[in-house]
Amino acid sequence: MNIRKDADQIIRESIGKVLPDEAVSRALAGKQFGAGKIRVVAAGKAAWQMACKAAEILGNRMDAGVVVTKYGHVKAEIPGMKCFEAGHPVPDQNSFIGTQAALEAVEGLTAEDTVLFLLSGGGSALFEKPLVAEEELSDITKQLLACGADIVEMNTIRKRLSAVKGGKFAKFCEPAHVYSIVLSDILGDPLDMIASGPAYPDSSTCTQALAIVEKYGLKFSEQALELLAQETPKELNNVETIITGSVRDLCRAASEACEDLGYEPVFLTDQLACEAREAGAFLAAIAKSHQDSKKSLAFIAGGETVVHLIGKGMGGRNQEIALSAALGIDSLKDTAVFSVGSDGTDGPTDAAGGYVDGDTKAALAKEGVNIYQVLRENDAYPALKKSGGLIMTGATGTNVNDVAVVLIRR
Amino acid sequence: MNIRKDADQIIRESIGKVLPDEAVSRALAGKQFGAGKIRVVAAGKAAWQMACKAAEILGNRMDAGVVVTKYGHVKAEIPGMKCFEAGHPVPDQNSFIGTQAALEAVEGLTAEDTVLFLLSGGGSALFEKPLVAEEELSDITKQLLACGADIVEMNTIRKRLSAVKGGKFAKFCEPAHVYSIVLSDILGDPLDMIASGPAYPDSSTCTQALAIVEKYGLKFSEQALELLAQETPKELNNVETIITGSVRDLCRAASEACEDLGYEPVFLTDQLACEAREAGAFLAAIAKSHQDSKKSLAFIAGGETVVHLIGKGMGGRNQEIALSAALGIDSLKDTAVFSVGSDGTDGPTDAAGGYVDGDTKAALAKEGVNIYQVLRENDAYPALKKSGGLIMTGATGTNVNDVAVVLIRR
Repeated sequence: MNIRKDADQIIRESIGKVLPDEAVSRALAGKQFGAGKIRVVAAGKAAWQMACKAAEILGNRMDAGVVVTKYGHVKAEIPGMKCFEAGHPVPDQNSFIGTQAALEAVEGLTAEDTVLFLLSGGGSALFEKPLVAEEELSDITKQLLACGADIVEMNTIRKRLSAVKGGKFAKFCEPAHVYSIVLSDILGDPLDMIASGPAYPDSSTCTQALAIVEKYGLKFSEQALELLAQETPKELNNVETIITGSVRDLCRAASEACEDLGYEPVFLTDQLACEAREAGAFLAAIAKSHQDSKKSLAFIAGGETVVHLIGKGMGGRNQEIALSAALGIDSLKDTAVFSVGSDGTDGPTDAAGGYVDGDTKAALAKEGVNIYQVLRENDAYPALKKSGGLIMTGATGTNVNDVAVVLIRR
Repeated sequence: MNIRKDADQIIRESIGKVLPDEAVSRALAGKQFGAGKIRVVAAGKAAWQMACKAAEILGNRMDAGVVVTKYGHVKAEIPGMKCFEAGHPVPDQNSFIGTQAALEAVEGLTAEDTVLFLLSGGGSALFEKPLVAEEELSDITKQLLACGADIVEMNTIRKRLSAVKGGKFAKFCEPAHVYSIVLSDILGDPLDMIASGPAYPDSSTCTQALAIVEKYGLKFSEQALELLAQETPKELNNVETIITGSVRDLCRAASEACEDLGYEPVFLTDQLACEAREAGAFLAAIAKSHQDSKKSLAFIAGGETVVHLIGKGMGGRNQEIALSAALGIDSLKDTAVFSVGSDGTDGPTDAAGGYVDGDTKAALAKEGVNIYQVLRENDAYPALKKSGGLIMTGATGTNVNDVAVVLIRR
């Protein structure tokens, strides 16, 4: 089926547009900096790639730089920069050492100077300088997890126990200008949440922080309690933030790729967060109801769905979306649904996602595969392997969530 | 909030357009019949209303008529027609008596004559003349349910044990012309499934029927096995079918009502069949991603979602869609989601559905109501009552599934 070729092209082009280097290129295109020095600080899982591209574009304009990324993610030295590899998702000594080097690199700058801050997912663990002893930080984290505090409550506390989170890194850079390029891995791009917002004003207050301690009866040292009483920056006049490479960009790129192939794109959402198989059923219902369309149509839904494991099989959320949709689009002509994770790894598999069309259900039935049964086992991977529906991209180096597309070819 | 007024108007207008009488009016508008007699046969839960309207429109052109509907559904005599009330969902003697009267009414007609056949949901039980003894039919039904046969398999068997199902009623009317007006209560309007398709060619075969008996090891009498070997009509040249009043019409009417109020309608699907709360989450994700729209938008999704009961509360699928969406659209300005059942009764409640907007979550939190908790208890009704979000229409007399709408007012 030709439609699979369309799907592959859409996947290739849309992920291509949200790769860290591409995102940095876009954000730096035509950008004018102040007359002073430019120092680069890159933190997160995509830090090395972002920094490489920035170094290439800035050339001699770059004065120095520091990269803090996950173990195994530094592929080569970058001239003029110090690269650190550190712990993720749990920060370790190397996180602190790398972050300290970053702080030193931005110390003593003037209002003429610029800090180019390249942030990506994973920055919360990789970019950290705790203000309490490591043991207490780890104890507090455990208490927060045990009491059932939500992510907003956790961050309200953690930002106050850190020298860089909650806008404090940008404060530290003052009076230098901070140009922050953010590769977003959280739906809706909440800038104070991505890597705990080192260069973004914090909206939480001391009163809220202390209320959380009281609410859950948390046990804090005197020193930690004092930190909770210190207000985080509420305004940052030296920061400019660009979100580039986010699930919205991924959806936009998918729309453009669909258009290039003659599909009329219909953007549904970039904040899909429901159960994967139900999203697949919803997308299939959309496909079924537009069969009489005279035009080729593409419906685009980005986000990050969830899978509540009920079986012990092999698969991932994107593969479940696709396989579940296969039930709904069974026998439909020139109709396909695919879903793909931009990082290239869907669940604990080597596939990026799954592709199905109107022939998939029957093809699997011939092989003795019952899709309902497969979904009960969370075992989408072997089934999609049999139907030729695995999408293989390899690790892409970016992570801006997922995109699912319904294609109706006319 | 003004948007609630919009919602109420959209609900009123869209249900108004799919009421049985309205649907019959539309289908009969400008319709020319042959020169002979016109006999009316109406079967299903909406039979009485459909027959009333047909009698009114046809006037003296109507020769005679028979109505078979559910107990309590005949509101008055219709001049020139015989009305029967019978068992639903399990057929009883009165179903057979009413159906026999209908068969007698269409006996001996000529090619000049017309049978106006008005079909609505529930017809499977109400319109039936079994070809095996009642006890065996009930035993076979039990066997089919116990062995886990799916609905297609069940119908393949049942059509062959009936004198009217699977196209046989239309065959019986030959050579008279049959004009069939169908109020569809099944997603996708599968005409051979609605009331088991008395006037629609049957796509199943004898071979399939016998294979089902073998597959499940069913025990049939000699007589029943002989019936399975008799082919159902594969072609019916005397039938014209109009589906009017279906969830597609409901969606179309909702689109028009939205447009009248200045919303740009986006039709998503009329075949939504996933878990209610996940559909609500999907719709909320769509609402979130279109907040920067400059135009007022309305996204329309029709269908019939399901609820897997996990708690013991009071609610229905439409109420769960709405309440679940309230989580996702929390704090959004001039944004609402509502979902409503066209029959006016959502689940075992007196509400037709639910309405929520960007203020609902906070309003409920003030009352001490946690929506996550409410969804865990399947207890949407009391929560929506507190937020003023119940949609009350009363029983409408139609059943063409549900429609959910996202409204973004700009």
